[in-house]
Amino acid sequence: MTNKEATPRQLRKDIRENILSQPTAGMAPGYLQCNLLILPSAFADEFLDYCEINPSVCPLIAKTKPGVHYFDDLGVDIDIRTDLAGYNVFVDGEKSAEVSSIADYWQTDFVSFAYGCSFSFEALLLDKGITLGYLDRGQREALYLTNIDTNRTDKFEGKLLASMRPLHPKDAIKAISITDKYPQVHGAPVHIGLPELIGVDLGQPYETLGPISIEKEEIPLFWACGVTPQLALINAKLPICITHKSAHMLITDKLVSEFSQ
Amino acid sequence: MTNKEATPRQLRKDIRENILSQPTAGMAPGYLQCNLLILPSAFADEFLDYCEINPSVCPLIAKTKPGVHYFDDLGVDIDIRTDLAGYNVFVDGEKSAEVSSIADYWQTDFVSFAYGCSFSFEALLLDKGITLGYLDRGQREALYLTNIDTNRTDKFEGKLLASMRPLHPKDAIKAISITDKYPQVHGAPVHIGLPELIGVDLGQPYETLGPISIEKEEIPLFWACGVTPQLALINAKLPICITHKSAHMLITDKLVSEFSQ
Repeated sequence: MTNKEATPRQLRKDIRENILSQPTAGMAPGYLQCNLLILPSAFADEFLDYCEINPSVCPLIAKTKPGVHYFDDLGVDIDIRTDLAGYNVFVDGEKSAEVSSIADYWQTDFVSFAYGCSFSFEALLLDKGITLGYLDRGQREALYLTNIDTNRTDKFEGKLLASMRPLHPKDAIKAISITDKYPQVHGAPVHIGLPELIGVDLGQPYETLGPISIEKEEIPLFWACGVTPQLALINAKLPICITHKSAHMLITDKLVSEFSQ
Repeated sequence: MTNKEATPRQLRKDIRENILSQPTAGMAPGYLQCNLLILPSAFADEFLDYCEINPSVCPLIAKTKPGVHYFDDLGVDIDIRTDLAGYNVFVDGEKSAEVSSIADYWQTDFVSFAYGCSFSFEALLLDKGITLGYLDRGQREALYLTNIDTNRTDKFEGKLLASMRPLHPKDAIKAISITDKYPQVHGAPVHIGLPELIGVDLGQPYETLGPISIEKEEIPLFWACGVTPQLALINAKLPICITHKSAHMLITDKLVSEFSQ
């Protein structure tokens, strides 16, 4: 059985047991993958505000009570502390560790937020007959820092990070209409076609596991990326907070199709 | 009262009386404007087939019985023979006249087709806060012949004509999502961003009332155009047929908002 065929529960188990440790793009197609963000309860209300005023950046799917380390609504037997293949730990705004389990860091006042990830809609696009040429070329979407400010709260502010996917124009049009119907996985793109307008140099990705190419018959589309709040957290210099490692998502038991609007 | 403020009925009356004779873009914002196509009843069934297999090109709104010169469903007191500011008359596939009334050409076996026009959605886009910079610059959309084949019937075949509008990328994204919900006024664009892919040289419009500019912060979007079937009619060399003159549309009493899907 491949990672593509495994159930979300099996994938979480393999990740928990460190059998699986790679990025989760393409795994469990059709199932919702989530960004994860964990912070002390003292900052939870303000971060919730930040989510609400930046819905395309951090479309909230679920939030725990303080100290709770599972998301009952998102799947069977999820353990927030171990079920992602990579976590970033930030202390006073600095990244202090990259780990595969946060059991040792867990605090009883931790509140966890899960919000939508654009990995979730790639299966939707494929289902609708859209060609994701970059996947066929063995590449994945790239991440870019834009010059677009997110809406700020008192403590949380930062620029928008966008994930870029190159598509043939006819597929780009379809992809816009489809993703527009799924605001909880970032919705429609924030930009198409002219990267310089949003301060992006395609040769300078923010963080990526490999280069991405744009073929002659493709144009770049940019979607709001769930790594964006990590920048806002760094700016806020919280005493401690934890996020998923870029591209290492929480794989849920929820079908993306349930989130159509 | 300006043409923008006049009711559709008043505009039709002014057109009928030759007080108004210009293109109807921007008139009666919010109301459906239609392409018109008239042919002998012997060819009506096959043309209906052509519409049905090319829904984005000729999205059918209404069709008359033979000899009937009004569209009861589309507005009060419409007279198909006089209520457009310009008509093209084709004989054996050649354009033989451009007239402001077809009363002298009317035949008792004529069947009339009304189908959606992209003029109708410009008001929708403006309502949603989209900037149509070309209108602000005193320009209108341009028409281009593409290398895309329409689906053919036995007699009717031809390349797709597309109307081009340049938009800022963020507005382009919104315009795609909005127009996708209105298939009866051509729906989502057929192309964005790379005109050469559809055989278009932006410097070579097919037919236009003035040049259009694309600003540095804009990208071109192409929608299927209702003039397309005129090419198919020319190819079919019908003994006679009549169409609206490009950009001189039938203004109906129907609100575009009724056609949302």
